[in-house]
Amino acid sequence: MNEVTDPPSPTISEEKRMERIVTKEDYIQSLKDLHHVVYYKGKRVEDVTEHPALRPHINSAALTYELALRPEHEELMTAVSHLTGRKINRFTHIHQSIDDLIKKVQMLRLIAHETGSCFQRCVGLDALNAVYMTAYDIDQKYKTDYFERFKRYLLHVQESNVMVVGGMTDPKGDRSLPPGKQADPDLFTHVVERRANGIIIRGAKAHMTGAVNSQEILIMPTQAMREEEKDYALACALPLNAPGVILIFGRQTNEERKCEEGFDAGNPQFGLVGGEALIIFEDVFVPWERVFLCGEYDLAGLLVERFATLHRQNYGGCKGGVSDVLIGASALAAEFQGTAGASHIKEKLAEMIHLAETIYAGSVACSAMGYKTPSGAYYPDPLLANTTKHNVTRHIYEIARLAHDISGGIVATMPFQGDLENSEVGRYVRKYLAGAQGIPVEARMKILRLIENMSGGTALVESMHGAGSPQTQKVMYGRLGNLEQKKRWAKRLVQID
Amino acid sequence: MNEVTDPPSPTISEEKRMERIVTKEDYIQSLKDLHHVVYYKGKRVEDVTEHPALRPHINSAALTYELALRPEHEELMTAVSHLTGRKINRFTHIHQSIDDLIKKVQMLRLIAHETGSCFQRCVGLDALNAVYMTAYDIDQKYKTDYFERFKRYLLHVQESNVMVVGGMTDPKGDRSLPPGKQADPDLFTHVVERRANGIIIRGAKAHMTGAVNSQEILIMPTQAMREEEKDYALACALPLNAPGVILIFGRQTNEERKCEEGFDAGNPQFGLVGGEALIIFEDVFVPWERVFLCGEYDLAGLLVERFATLHRQNYGGCKGGVSDVLIGASALAAEFQGTAGASHIKEKLAEMIHLAETIYAGSVACSAMGYKTPSGAYYPDPLLANTTKHNVTRHIYEIARLAHDISGGIVATMPFQGDLENSEVGRYVRKYLAGAQGIPVEARMKILRLIENMSGGTALVESMHGAGSPQTQKVMYGRLGNLEQKKRWAKRLVQID
Amino acid sequence: MNEVTDPPSPTISEEKRMERIVTKEDYIQSLKDLHHVVYYKGKRVEDVTEHPALRPHINSAALTYELALRPEHEELMTAVSHLTGRKINRFTHIHQSIDDLIKKVQMLRLIAHETGSCFQRCVGLDALNAVYMTAYDIDQKYKTDYFERFKRYLLHVQESNVMVVGGMTDPKGDRSLPPGKQADPDLFTHVVERRANGIIIRGAKAHMTGAVNSQEILIMPTQAMREEEKDYALACALPLNAPGVILIFGRQTNEERKCEEGFDAGNPQFGLVGGEALIIFEDVFVPWERVFLCGEYDLAGLLVERFATLHRQNYGGCKGGVSDVLIGASALAAEFQGTAGASHIKEKLAEMIHLAETIYAGSVACSAMGYKTPSGAYYPDPLLANTTKHNVTRHIYEIARLAHDISGGIVATMPFQGDLENSEVGRYVRKYLAGAQGIPVEARMKILRLIENMSGGTALVESMHGAGSPQTQKVMYGRLGNLEQKKRWAKRLVQID
Amino acid sequence: MNEVTDPPSPTISEEKRMERIVTKEDYIQSLKDLHHVVYYKGKRVEDVTEHPALRPHINSAALTYELALRPEHEELMTAVSHLTGRKINRFTHIHQSIDDLIKKVQMLRLIAHETGSCFQRCVGLDALNAVYMTAYDIDQKYKTDYFERFKRYLLHVQESNVMVVGGMTDPKGDRSLPPGKQADPDLFTHVVERRANGIIIRGAKAHMTGAVNSQEILIMPTQAMREEEKDYALACALPLNAPGVILIFGRQTNEERKCEEGFDAGNPQFGLVGGEALIIFEDVFVPWERVFLCGEYDLAGLLVERFATLHRQNYGGCKGGVSDVLIGASALAAEFQGTAGASHIKEKLAEMIHLAETIYAGSVACSAMGYKTPSGAYYPDPLLANTTKHNVTRHIYEIARLAHDISGGIVATMPFQGDLENSEVGRYVRKYLAGAQGIPVEARMKILRLIENMSGGTALVESMHGAGSPQTQKVMYGRLGNLEQKKRWAKRLVQID
Repeated sequence: MNEVTDPPSPTISEEKRMERIVTKEDYIQSLKDLHHVVYYKGKRVEDVTEHPALRPHINSAALTYELALRPEHEELMTAVSHLTGRKINRFTHIHQSIDDLIKKVQMLRLIAHETGSCFQRCVGLDALNAVYMTAYDIDQKYKTDYFERFKRYLLHVQESNVMVVGGMTDPKGDRSLPPGKQADPDLFTHVVERRANGIIIRGAKAHMTGAVNSQEILIMPTQAMREEEKDYALACALPLNAPGVILIFGRQTNEERKCEEGFDAGNPQFGLVGGEALIIFEDVFVPWERVFLCGEYDLAGLLVERFATLHRQNYGGCKGGVSDVLIGASALAAEFQGTAGASHIKEKLAEMIHLAETIYAGSVACSAMGYKTPSGAYYPDPLLANTTKHNVTRHIYEIARLAHDISGGIVATMPFQGDLENSEVGRYVRKYLAGAQGIPVEARMKILRLIENMSGGTALVESMHGAGSPQTQKVMYGRLGNLEQKKRWAKRLVQID
Repeated sequence: MNEVTDPPSPTISEEKRMERIVTKEDYIQSLKDLHHVVYYKGKRVEDVTEHPALRPHINSAALTYELALRPEHEELMTAVSHLTGRKINRFTHIHQSIDDLIKKVQMLRLIAHETGSCFQRCVGLDALNAVYMTAYDIDQKYKTDYFERFKRYLLHVQESNVMVVGGMTDPKGDRSLPPGKQADPDLFTHVVERRANGIIIRGAKAHMTGAVNSQEILIMPTQAMREEEKDYALACALPLNAPGVILIFGRQTNEERKCEEGFDAGNPQFGLVGGEALIIFEDVFVPWERVFLCGEYDLAGLLVERFATLHRQNYGGCKGGVSDVLIGASALAAEFQGTAGASHIKEKLAEMIHLAETIYAGSVACSAMGYKTPSGAYYPDPLLANTTKHNVTRHIYEIARLAHDISGGIVATMPFQGDLENSEVGRYVRKYLAGAQGIPVEARMKILRLIENMSGGTALVESMHGAGSPQTQKVMYGRLGNLEQKKRWAKRLVQID
Repeated sequence: MNEVTDPPSPTISEEKRMERIVTKEDYIQSLKDLHHVVYYKGKRVEDVTEHPALRPHINSAALTYELALRPEHEELMTAVSHLTGRKINRFTHIHQSIDDLIKKVQMLRLIAHETGSCFQRCVGLDALNAVYMTAYDIDQKYKTDYFERFKRYLLHVQESNVMVVGGMTDPKGDRSLPPGKQADPDLFTHVVERRANGIIIRGAKAHMTGAVNSQEILIMPTQAMREEEKDYALACALPLNAPGVILIFGRQTNEERKCEEGFDAGNPQFGLVGGEALIIFEDVFVPWERVFLCGEYDLAGLLVERFATLHRQNYGGCKGGVSDVLIGASALAAEFQGTAGASHIKEKLAEMIHLAETIYAGSVACSAMGYKTPSGAYYPDPLLANTTKHNVTRHIYEIARLAHDISGGIVATMPFQGDLENSEVGRYVRKYLAGAQGIPVEARMKILRLIENMSGGTALVESMHGAGSPQTQKVMYGRLGNLEQKKRWAKRLVQID
Repeated sequence: MNEVTDPPSPTISEEKRMERIVTKEDYIQSLKDLHHVVYYKGKRVEDVTEHPALRPHINSAALTYELALRPEHEELMTAVSHLTGRKINRFTHIHQSIDDLIKKVQMLRLIAHETGSCFQRCVGLDALNAVYMTAYDIDQKYKTDYFERFKRYLLHVQESNVMVVGGMTDPKGDRSLPPGKQADPDLFTHVVERRANGIIIRGAKAHMTGAVNSQEILIMPTQAMREEEKDYALACALPLNAPGVILIFGRQTNEERKCEEGFDAGNPQFGLVGGEALIIFEDVFVPWERVFLCGEYDLAGLLVERFATLHRQNYGGCKGGVSDVLIGASALAAEFQGTAGASHIKEKLAEMIHLAETIYAGSVACSAMGYKTPSGAYYPDPLLANTTKHNVTRHIYEIARLAHDISGGIVATMPFQGDLENSEVGRYVRKYLAGAQGIPVEARMKILRLIENMSGGTALVESMHGAGSPQTQKVMYGRLGNLEQKKRWAKRLVQID
C-alpha cells in the first residue's frame, strides 16, 4: 500500500546514487564513487574498497545484497514495500507484521552463518523503523509533517537500496553531566544554526558500525532530552560524503593481520565485528527535507527507546548465528586434535549450544510478542528485547570461554603462518602441530585462527556494548517490569491490601 | 472439524463422570465421587477434598476450571475443539496452530499469577497432545487404529472436562540397567497379560503431579525401548479409581503447615508445587479401547521425546508466572522493612525480572517456532523447548537465592504465628517485627512466609526435575544441535573441506 | 600467661554454673538448671532439654564438649588459656597466633563432619575475641577499664566453660532510618537507665543462633553509631535466665519432623542450622562488671567490623564441612540408584568439591594472613574474610542445586516413612523405591531425607545472611579493597600521573 | 644447610654464564651472549634483546632481578639457599617452609603489580622444586643418584642465577592416543639414544612461557607413563643454545603493536602474557649429569602432579596481582568519563575485587596447608592448589568482562594513536574523546589501551590453560576429593553402613 504520491526530492542524492544498488559490484562501485573522507591509522584512505583493513567489512555488508539475489533466501532477505508494493531488500523494510519481525531475526542468523562476523546493515534498518514510528507520533502531537517527509526519504532508501548507518551514540564527554552542561557543547550532536532551507549541525557519533562503507547516515538523539536541551533533540539523514563529515576508523583487535595475505587473520574474507568509526560533523548542512525531529525534545526519549528495542531484538539472531559458527569451529578443533570423544568436550559443546539457543530464543520471543504501533509499523516487545540483549552481554563471553577451553592453549600461542612457510622451520611446525591422522596442519591452524578471531577482544566488547550497555537494559527492567502489578499478585495470595 | 463419527465407548467411565465438569464445585464433587485409593502419611485418605494437606492442590487445579468461566480469560483459557467445533477447556485441546502454542504459554503464566504455585493440569494436556501425534504416526507405520481410538478418548476428555494426569516416569530401580534387566521386572511399568478385551498392567509411575486430584491417567512409556522391551512400550488411559490403582502422596517441604490454620503455610490457599504422588498399578485391567501403544517399541522414543518437548515448553510460562509473584513478594518485603530504595535491592529485583523474562522468552520462542506434525497437531520447536527447561533448572534457583538475599535472615528465623497470637509474648513479636511505619506486622509476616514457601526445597526441586532432569536436556542438544551443519559453516569460512 | 589477679566477681552467675561444664551431661544439666524463659510455637517450654524440637540443636552444640574430650581431637578442640595457662575449650579461647586462627577453621570443619549441621558455639567465640580486642582499644583511647573487666569475664567463661551466644543483630525496624529516628526507640537495643551498680537495657536481638541452649549472652552493638546514638553503643554480658529476658524460637523448614520418630527429619540427631531465636530484653539489669562498651560510640563500628570479620572467617570451615557431608550423601544417592558411573554425575560431584574447597580456602587464607591486634589477640585478614563469606552466599546454593540435580526428583516427592511402615502399602513403597541391588530401601530413603534436610530453605538462608548479608561484604570491598593503590599501579604502567 | 660437597660440573654451561646474573643489564647481556636459535614471524631473530616484539617480555622477566635488589622487597624476592646458606633469588629457591610457600605467592602478586603482565620465571622455579622432590623419591625406590646430580644442578642455577624455563607440555598430536601409538613417535619428547656420556633426545615442548629469554630449560615428562612408554619418562636440563634446539615464538593478540612506538600497545613496557614459544629438540645431546629421570616410568606421573600443583599454586598470586591492575585501570576509566559515582559501577568494581581476592585466597590457602615432602622440600596442598587454578579459569574471564562493561564500547573502537597525532583529524580526536574535565585525552586513551591489552584474547587463554586445562583440575578433584570419606560421614549421620 503506497500512500506516497510525490516522488522524493532528488536534491540530496546525486543522480548516480539513485541508480538501484543490486549486486555486490554495484555496492562496491557506489562506495568508490562516494569519495567520503575516511581516516585509518592516521592517514586518509583514498578508496575504502581497496584498503585491506576495510575490505573484509565491505565483503560482509555486501552479502546483504548478494544473498537477496539467491532464490533460496528470497523469503528472508527481501520483503514487499508497504509504500510501493515492490520487492525490496529487507534491510530497507518497515515491519508490517509479527512475521516480519521474526523473519528479520532469522535473516540475521542466516547471514551470520555466512560471515561469522557482523554485517552492519541492521543499524540502519532499525533506525529507519524507529524514526518511522516516531515521526508519526510527533506529527500526531505537534501537527508537524515529519512522517510524510520521512516516507519520502524511506522511498528513496528502498528504491536506491543504499546502505544507511544509524547514528545514535554521542561522545558524551563527562557522563555525569547532561548535554547542556558539558565543557564543550559539541560533545552531544546538536543544531548550531537554523536556516530557511535547512539546518547546520555539529558534533560527533561514536563507534558507528559499518559507517565507512555506508552511503548515508540517519542521525538520532542519544538520549531523552529536556526542554533546555532542545537543540540536541535532533533526527535527520545525510549522505556521508556531505561537506564537513569525517570518518575515523577505530582500531580493532589484530587489525594488522587483515593487511597480510593468508589465514592468520582468522576470518580473512569477513574480518571481525562491524568496523566501527567515529563520525565527525563539522558544521554540516542538512536540508529540511531530511530533518525528522528538531526541537520536539519530549519525544526524543521515545525515539531512543524504540531504536534501542529494535536493535536489541537483533542480538540473539546475529550473535546466535555467529555463535553457531564458533561452536562448529570448536567442535572441529576438538576433532582435529582427537578430543571430540571426551565426555567433558561434548558437555561443553552442549553448553555452548544451550547458550546460543537461549539468546536466539530471546530474539524470537520479543518478535513473537511484538505489536502494531500507531504508525502501522510493528514493534518487538521491549521487555523481552532488553532481556535478549542482556543475556548476550553474558553468554557471548561464556561461549568464548568455552571455545578457549576446548581449543587448548594452542589457540593463543600458535606460530605465525610465516613460520609454517619458512624453509628452515616450516617442517617443524608441520611436524609438531600435527593432530589426528589425516588432518592437514593447515586445516587445524585455520580453524584455530578462526576461533582466535571470533573469541577475542573486540568481538566480545561488541556483544557487551552494541545496542546499549548492560546498565541500560537493567534500567529498562525497572520501567517495563511492572513491579506494581507483581506486588498486587503477591498481596492477593496472602490476603493483604 | 470433527472427524469422529462414533461417540466414545462409555465402558470405562462411570456415567456420572460423563457429566461435564464446569465449575470448581463440579470438579470437587467429581473427586468426592471418585473413591480412589489415596494414602497420606501412612494412612488411607477417605475424601481427598476434605484433607487439609491435599485441599490446596485441589484449589489450585480448580482454578483451571474457574478461570475458564471468566470472560476476560476466555481467549486464553478455552479453545475450539477441532473434533467437535465446541468450546472446550484449553487443557483438553489439541494445538491447531502456533497461536495455540503461544496461548498455552500465556495461559500458564496467567494462572501462575493467581496461584503462585503449580496447578498441575498441563501434564495431562501435554500427554494428550503427545499421544495424539504419535498414535497417528504408529498407524501410518503399522496400519493400526490407535489414532481413531485415541480421538474417541480425546472426545471423552473434552466433553467431560475431566482432569487427566499424564504418567511417564517409571521408578527405574537401578538406573544403569535397562527395563528387562532389573532385579524386579515391575520397576518399569509393563503389560503382564494380553486378553481379548484388554490388557493387564503392572508397575508404578513416580512423582505424578496432581495425581490425587485427577480423575484419570494417561500412561506413556518412560524412555525409548528396544525390541526385547516390547512389553514396556505401552501407552494407555484409565480412571484412577480402577481396581488395583493405589496413590501414595509424597512428603513435601513444610507439609505439616498446610494442616494448621493461618498464614504460616505461606500460600495457604494453593500450597506449593503440584502435590506429587507415587501411583501403583497392581495388575490393573485396561480395555483395548483405551490402549494407544502396545508393543510398537520403535515409536516409544518418539512419544517420550514429544511429551518431553511439550512439557518443557511450559516451564517459562508457569515458572515465569510464579517468579513474577516471588518478585512482587520480594519487592514488598523490601518495602516493608525500608530497604526498597537501596540501589543494590533495585539491582537484585531487576536481575530477578531479567531471569524470569529469560525463561518466559524461551517458552514463547519454542512456541513461535513450532510446526505442524503429520497428525495435524502443532508441536513446539524441540531444541528451543529444551533450552527453556534447561534455563529453568538454573534460574529458578537464582531467583530464590535473590529472594532470600532481599528478604533478610528473618525469612528463615521468624517466630511462629502462634507466638504472635500468644498472650504473653505476642506483644513482643508485634513490637520487634515492626518494619516501616504503617505496615501491619501481620502483612510483613505473611509476605515473608509466602517467600519462604516459594523459595524452599520442593519448589526448587520441581524446577530441576519436572519435565526431565537437566541431563536429559543436555543429551537433546547433542541430537538437535546439528553440530555437523555448524562445522560446515566454520569450514567454509576458512576454506577447508 | 595470666595477667588477672582477682577472680571474677561471682555476683552474676549462680554458684552452680561456676562448676565447670565438662561432659555433654554437664552441659545438658546446666541447661536444665537454667530455667530461662523460652517460647516455641506459641507455648512456654519448661525444659529445653526435653523438647524434641530443641534437642537436636542441643545435641549438636554438645559435640563441642564431647569432641574436646577425645584425644585425637584435643589439638583442634582445646587450647591453652593465655590468662591461666590451663587447657580450655577452644570455643572460649582468645587467638594467640596465626596457628590458632587456622586451627579454629579446622575445628569447625571437623565438627561439621560430625553434625552435618550448625553447632552454634562459634558465635560466642567470635564475640569474646571481638570484645577483647576492642575493650583494649577503648581503654587506650578513653582510659576506661573495660579490658580488665572483660578479662575477668573471660576467665569466668574459660573456667566455667559455659556456652555464650554472641548478640549483635538488632531488629532495626525501618532500615532506612537510624537508631534514634525509629518510631519505637527499642528497635535497637539500648541503655534506658544508668544506676550506680549497673545499667538497665531494653530491646531485642534477632535470629540468635543457639540462644535457647546457651547459658549466657554477650551483647554487642549492631552497627557503627554516631554521637546522638550513644545509648545504642553498648556491649555487655548477662545470663540468659536474668529477669526480663525472653527467648522465642524461630520457625524452621520442616521443624515438625523433629517431633516425629524416625528418619524423615533427615538429620534426626542434629537437626538443621542453628536453631535461631528472637531474644527480648525487657528492662534487664546488667552490673557494671559485665559492661564492656557503654557510650563510646566512636568505637562501636570497630567492634562490629571485628566481630563480622571473625565470624565471616568461619564460614568456609563449617559450611565447607557441611558441604562435605552433602557431597558424600549425593554420591551415595547416585550410587544407590545406579548412576554413579555416569560422566555427568562425576562432573557434578567434582564441581561440588570444587565449590566446597573454594570456600574452605577462603577461611584458611584469611587466617594465614591474620595479624596481631594491639590487645595481643590475633585477627584474620578482613578483606579475605569478607571474600570467604561472600562466596558462601553463592556457592552453598549452587552446591544444593547440584545435590538436587544428582538426587533426582525423588528427593522432593518421596513417600513418608509412615507409608513404608504401613501394612497395606509399605510393600509397594519398598518394591518401587528399590535402587541398585543390595541397597536396602531404608538406606536410600535415609540418604535422600538427609539431602532434603541439608539443601532446603533454612539451610540455604543461613549461608546467605549468617555473619552479615551479602551487601555488607560488598560494602567492605569498597573500604578494604584499596582502590587508590590499584589506580596508582595502573597509572604507573602507562605513565600518567 | 649445604649437603653438596662437590661443585657442579661446569661441562655444560659456558664459563661466561657461570658469572652470576645480578642486574637487569647482566640478564640482558647473558641473553645477547646466548646466540640461541629463535624464530619470529617466519624469520630468524639475531638478537632477542633488540627485537621490539620480544623486548617487553624481557623487561618483565628482568624485574625478577631488579626487584630483588630493592631493599624493601628483599624479604619476598630473595631467600637463603638451603644448599649454601647464601642469599639467592627466590626464583631459584627450594621451599623450606610454609612461610616460603606463602612468600612465593606474595612475591608473584608483588611483581604482577609492577608489570601488569606475566614475568615467566615461576615456571622454572616450579620445575626445580618438582624435580627436586621427585629425584629424591626415585632414588629411594631405585637406588639411583638423581638427587645428588640434581642438587649440583640446582647449585649451578642458584649461583649463576640463570633463568630456567620448565618444559612439560608435549605437542601430543592425536590426544586420544598414548605416546607410543602416535603416527609420529616424536609428538611426545623422548630419548632416542643412550650413550656413555649422555642421551640424545627428540621432540618438542609447546607454548613454553618465557622460553626465548631463558638461558636453560628443565624438561619434564608431560603425563604419567606406562612401562611401554619408558623412553618418554624423561627429565633433564640443558642450555637453550645447545645444538639442535630451535625456538619458534607464538603469535599473540595485537603483537604487531609492540613494534610501534607509543601507547597503542597498551602495556608498552611489559607486553602481555608470557611470550610463549614452541621449542624443538632435534636430536639434542644431554650429558648424564643433567639427566634426572630416564626410564623410571612409574614416577613420571608423580613428577607431573607435583609440577602441576606447584604451578597451580601460583595463579591466585600473579593473576590476582594482574587483576588488581586491571581493577585500578577500570576505576580510572570510569573516573575519566564521569561514571565513577554510579552505583552500578561501584558494584562492578566491588565484584572484581571479590573475584581477585577469591583467587588470591586460594593461593594463600594451599600454601598455608602445605607440608614437607620426604626430600625436605615443602609442597602446597594439592587439592587447594587445583581449586585455585580452577577458579582462575573462570574468574579472570569474568573480571575481563566487567572491565569491558565499565570501560564502555570505546575500549574496542578507539581511533589509533596515529589519528590523535594526525594534523588533519587529531584535533577532532582530542575534542571528541574528551572525558571528565581536566583529564588529558592521552591519559584516557592510555588507560583504555591498557584495559584492552589486559582483557583480550591471549591474556584470557593463558588463565584458562596455563598450568593445565580445567579438565585436568576436575580430574584431580576425583582423585584428591576423598569421596569415600565423605560418604562415610553421610552414612554415619543417618546410621547406615
